[in-house]
Amino acid sequence: MQAFVMRSIGETGIVEKDRPTPGPNDAIVKPTKGLICTSDCHTVHGAIGDREDLTLGHEIVGVVDEVGDEVSEFEAGDRVAVGAITPDWNSLAAQDGHPSQSNEALGGWKFANVKDGTFAEYAHVNDADGNMAHVPDGVTDHEATYVADMLSTGFAGAENAAVPMGGTVAVFAQGPVGLMATKGAALLGAGEIIAVETMDNRKELAREYGADHVVDFADVDPVEAIMDLTDGEGVDGAIEALGADETLQDCIEVTKPGGTISNVGYHGEGEFRHIPRVEWGVGMAEKDIVTDLCPGGRLRISRMLRLIETDRVDPTKLTTHEFDFEEIETAFDMMDTKEDGMIKPLIHFE
Amino acid sequence: MQAFVMRSIGETGIVEKDRPTPGPNDAIVKPTKGLICTSDCHTVHGAIGDREDLTLGHEIVGVVDEVGDEVSEFEAGDRVAVGAITPDWNSLAAQDGHPSQSNEALGGWKFANVKDGTFAEYAHVNDADGNMAHVPDGVTDHEATYVADMLSTGFAGAENAAVPMGGTVAVFAQGPVGLMATKGAALLGAGEIIAVETMDNRKELAREYGADHVVDFADVDPVEAIMDLTDGEGVDGAIEALGADETLQDCIEVTKPGGTISNVGYHGEGEFRHIPRVEWGVGMAEKDIVTDLCPGGRLRISRMLRLIETDRVDPTKLTTHEFDFEEIETAFDMMDTKEDGMIKPLIHFE
Amino acid sequence: MQAFVMRSIGETGIVEKDRPTPGPNDAIVKPTKGLICTSDCHTVHGAIGDREDLTLGHEIVGVVDEVGDEVSEFEAGDRVAVGAITPDWNSLAAQDGHPSQSNEALGGWKFANVKDGTFAEYAHVNDADGNMAHVPDGVTDHEATYVADMLSTGFAGAENAAVPMGGTVAVFAQGPVGLMATKGAALLGAGEIIAVETMDNRKELAREYGADHVVDFADVDPVEAIMDLTDGEGVDGAIEALGADETLQDCIEVTKPGGTISNVGYHGEGEFRHIPRVEWGVGMAEKDIVTDLCPGGRLRISRMLRLIETDRVDPTKLTTHEFDFEEIETAFDMMDTKEDGMIKPLIHFE
Amino acid sequence: MQAFVMRSIGETGIVEKDRPTPGPNDAIVKPTKGLICTSDCHTVHGAIGDREDLTLGHEIVGVVDEVGDEVSEFEAGDRVAVGAITPDWNSLAAQDGHPSQSNEALGGWKFANVKDGTFAEYAHVNDADGNMAHVPDGVTDHEATYVADMLSTGFAGAENAAVPMGGTVAVFAQGPVGLMATKGAALLGAGEIIAVETMDNRKELAREYGADHVVDFADVDPVEAIMDLTDGEGVDGAIEALGADETLQDCIEVTKPGGTISNVGYHGEGEFRHIPRVEWGVGMAEKDIVTDLCPGGRLRISRMLRLIETDRVDPTKLTTHEFDFEEIETAFDMMDTKEDGMIKPLIHFE
Repeated sequence: MQAFVMRSIGETGIVEKDRPTPGPNDAIVKPTKGLICTSDCHTVHGAIGDREDLTLGHEIVGVVDEVGDEVSEFEAGDRVAVGAITPDWNSLAAQDGHPSQSNEALGGWKFANVKDGTFAEYAHVNDADGNMAHVPDGVTDHEATYVADMLSTGFAGAENAAVPMGGTVAVFAQGPVGLMATKGAALLGAGEIIAVETMDNRKELAREYGADHVVDFADVDPVEAIMDLTDGEGVDGAIEALGADETLQDCIEVTKPGGTISNVGYHGEGEFRHIPRVEWGVGMAEKDIVTDLCPGGRLRISRMLRLIETDRVDPTKLTTHEFDFEEIETAFDMMDTKEDGMIKPLIHFE
Repeated sequence: MQAFVMRSIGETGIVEKDRPTPGPNDAIVKPTKGLICTSDCHTVHGAIGDREDLTLGHEIVGVVDEVGDEVSEFEAGDRVAVGAITPDWNSLAAQDGHPSQSNEALGGWKFANVKDGTFAEYAHVNDADGNMAHVPDGVTDHEATYVADMLSTGFAGAENAAVPMGGTVAVFAQGPVGLMATKGAALLGAGEIIAVETMDNRKELAREYGADHVVDFADVDPVEAIMDLTDGEGVDGAIEALGADETLQDCIEVTKPGGTISNVGYHGEGEFRHIPRVEWGVGMAEKDIVTDLCPGGRLRISRMLRLIETDRVDPTKLTTHEFDFEEIETAFDMMDTKEDGMIKPLIHFE
Repeated sequence: MQAFVMRSIGETGIVEKDRPTPGPNDAIVKPTKGLICTSDCHTVHGAIGDREDLTLGHEIVGVVDEVGDEVSEFEAGDRVAVGAITPDWNSLAAQDGHPSQSNEALGGWKFANVKDGTFAEYAHVNDADGNMAHVPDGVTDHEATYVADMLSTGFAGAENAAVPMGGTVAVFAQGPVGLMATKGAALLGAGEIIAVETMDNRKELAREYGADHVVDFADVDPVEAIMDLTDGEGVDGAIEALGADETLQDCIEVTKPGGTISNVGYHGEGEFRHIPRVEWGVGMAEKDIVTDLCPGGRLRISRMLRLIETDRVDPTKLTTHEFDFEEIETAFDMMDTKEDGMIKPLIHFE
Repeated sequence: MQAFVMRSIGETGIVEKDRPTPGPNDAIVKPTKGLICTSDCHTVHGAIGDREDLTLGHEIVGVVDEVGDEVSEFEAGDRVAVGAITPDWNSLAAQDGHPSQSNEALGGWKFANVKDGTFAEYAHVNDADGNMAHVPDGVTDHEATYVADMLSTGFAGAENAAVPMGGTVAVFAQGPVGLMATKGAALLGAGEIIAVETMDNRKELAREYGADHVVDFADVDPVEAIMDLTDGEGVDGAIEALGADETLQDCIEVTKPGGTISNVGYHGEGEFRHIPRVEWGVGMAEKDIVTDLCPGGRLRISRMLRLIETDRVDPTKLTTHEFDFEEIETAFDMMDTKEDGMIKPLIHFE
């Protein structure tokens, strides 16, 4: 079968591989649609070290081709969404309420990290009963691809910000995760949502997804702007959806005492993140900093799918470009540079 | 009346002041016993800016001398413990579950900050119904002085670490707050408690208060030692009770993915605290960082007093020295340098 | 001044009373708009015992006429919303996170219970800083009257049901509180909302406020219907907004193991509520039953107002009838019988 | 192999069965010590319907005899504690934080319910990696038998009561689960613990495990006694450890507004449990009722074992009698009647 792989640091390609075979708890899924994630780009650039011919990708929807003997919830022919994060559900971390950290830090992240990813004719899904969900009839494949990572991660950012009904929230960066964090805050009853972004199409989408204000950091200092918008109080919660030192600091500054900083950005560079000591209330202002890796699991995926099915969210607005599988290298290169205003490129596998 | 004051940065003295008078919601309390806090020393060194003849102190027990017309729970002659932190209970922050941040960051901290402290013949307590508690017969004045700050702060450090029953916890620094965090972790059902300290009398007290292991950072690298003690897993929770950049970093490193870093240290210096990016799981390891300022309030104080009354904790082991009020400058100078193994000096007001 | 009172059990009337005067922490508010609550009817029927010429009412918006010396957040002329529940914010229960229970069960409920209510030319508000909020310019008086009780109570019902994003919820009874619970569930990200009701105008409003399904209990057994709609699983949360034994039982039956029953109904009659033992999983199915009395407070009121200001909710759809203050007895009698499809009657005070 | 079974309702016996074989995720364990549970008696009396030659028992410690191919954490020869509740960790309920409800209400309860229990020469453990834990060297087999159910269930009762540090708690009934709930409350920092019991040896153990007061319901009305002991306030939390209608009602009555009723009793009889309407605050006093089925899992078992290893708890005080496996029918009959003051009988399998 054909697979889109990281050949080595900085190099990608399509190679021929054997179709994977399932263990007793696993499934083989034939992808129909997929999305490229910026983290795929980070990986190819070496963020998690070198890999040799590792299949990329972790956001797909597809059809079950085969299941292991112990799989009870799925059978060949089922249309399924697959989680980007595929934890070991009986691990200590999962039993502790942190499945994404199963066995080690970020241990639920297996696709295109410690095993082949999903950008191939067939993908191997560990613990299929735990890590896939049936796609309801009312949800298209295109829509369903978004639950794997973008909805789950962005919404987790909003959930962790713990904004009370009618509270205020700032969302730093309106990439696909940030936009879903904005939408998540709207879905969770925030009373005022402030998005920070500079690119025009992202600013426009931020408003469509529920932002009451969009602060363009190219025009104004975002900390000042947010403090002004909140009459000097600061926000109940701030969401970091970029993975940069400066935005994390900004989040800490604009959060009111007793509020929460919710990080969903992937911090890929630098030795340290910096907490501004005074604005952090000398360690006593009860500004908590919480973090998350995309929650996976059949339950989570099913709930995300239900939100699409009942028209609470239309994630396909994030799709700016479409490609056939044969064109995936072009899609990948554009995602790397975000040229042409790319937010998410949809891949058609058939 | 006589009051022990900060005359200006770096200078203390005993001066004559007028006895305060209560507003309708306030009380005047005549202290019987008190404790000096290291934060008094920070204040005199200029940590919160200059002050002129500001009365120091925030840890006392005493007798009510007078109450305002709206006070309903107390009357003259009542023996009371007074909170170190005296929030405005109808403020937005208090209604939000963060009374110590009432009106502004750290806004519940009024004594020896924005109003005169308690080291005087009479002390003014704002919102007396909300900020004092009756001392039960079975609790001595000496014991009761500890609930104002040391028990409430140390135990909050343990509570915020969110260590499950049978879980593991590391407590960095065994000063009085750290020792009470150690005791707090023991009271909350931690299964294994690792204390970090180098001074002999504090190491011994750590064991008495419940530490299963004491790591002497002068002998070994504490991060390595804690990882070894936990078979490489790290701890469920780590408590920072010093207020230093290095110990906060150590806390982040020794906490397992999905665990919690609980800060109760006062970070008095430096522009930034540093989060080690990789050990923090690139912002995705679900290692949350939570902070607290001493919880105050009649309810909290009463519960702390009950723990003493029912013999769950004996805080007087922290008292290494005793002084009459006339000697308070000597006590203060020794607390500043921690000479002679001082942990807490008890002041007798009568 | 004129006041609409409960003369004795079963009897109401408009009587002349002295204008109240404020204590140091209180305010006198001149109502502009108000709403009658079904609980006013219960009170007149004797639900909380007899009263003599007690002023009724607890849902108003108005203008500050006078404040006590200790009030710092408000001054005469301010346009304010007043909470239906006016806790003592320094009470033990408030410090414990349960302000509505201040000093005794339901102790935050003072208006038209232990002191005169708000249906008079002037109303006395205890602890004004804690229990009122400024109405933003973008919110009308009519809209603002709803935050006192209907939004706060209904939304609390939804919050307590603890429905996760994309989860399922059933709301039993679509009176004004039930409708706001339905809207609250929608605002909080429920993936599927099932409303139970039989009256046509309420069924229609339920759909407008976000219900995906409306089950008419006159046509079908609601338990069966809800189990069918959820493929036999039951809902993540069920909200009781009526105060009846049967609906509480239904809630327990339709909630899945591990789910939550959230009660906001006022259970006015009968010696017992009945928990069906088997459907409750013999006390081991982790179906928690939580209850609430309308949350009050400046912060809560402000957040509810913000949700109106930013167009998250339009509560005025609940207003089916309008009356001048002189006609309040007619309004009250109609509210008692709910004739003419009354949901909420708005009272104009000027 | 020999197995102690329920032959049919009301009848037990030792029969010969085939040794079980493991699926890919399972283990076969050879028990060394075990404990009989009152729920085994309920089962034989027909509480969950008829069964034919179903092996009884769910509390054992033993040695791994064989593991399936997918088991990675254990191998033959390992000394292990087995959970009484053995959830499917990838089920929706487990992913929702309620593993004991996996797939259906009480679905984690498999032993001696939907599959053979553990009172046999060999026991089959589903999902071995998720449902067993290694016993540390410092913990005896006798001690370790208690983690399967008694510690985990009793401690969960205390955890769910959500008693704050220094708060008050009442524990109704001091059977083995109630005694562990008492001990659990002590381990979690309760400031005052009131145990309700009438049998002398249980009253004595209650004190040893941390009760400050023991109320003998044969001498006094327990509700009155508890209200007196708390100065009329009621307790922060009440734990029902019997499974009776009357004690559940008592729990609701003695809990203060805003407090929590934690049920761990198995309610085996009657159509309804009765909530006293007025004492429940007409559904508005914020007295929450929470329930639990014994939490299982490798993490939970390991944490319970650590509490024994570090001398936080000695559960062997509960062992009043000891028997060889051949005598298990005698032990069972005595457990059924609790004759001779039996609390827990230990079974030696070798």
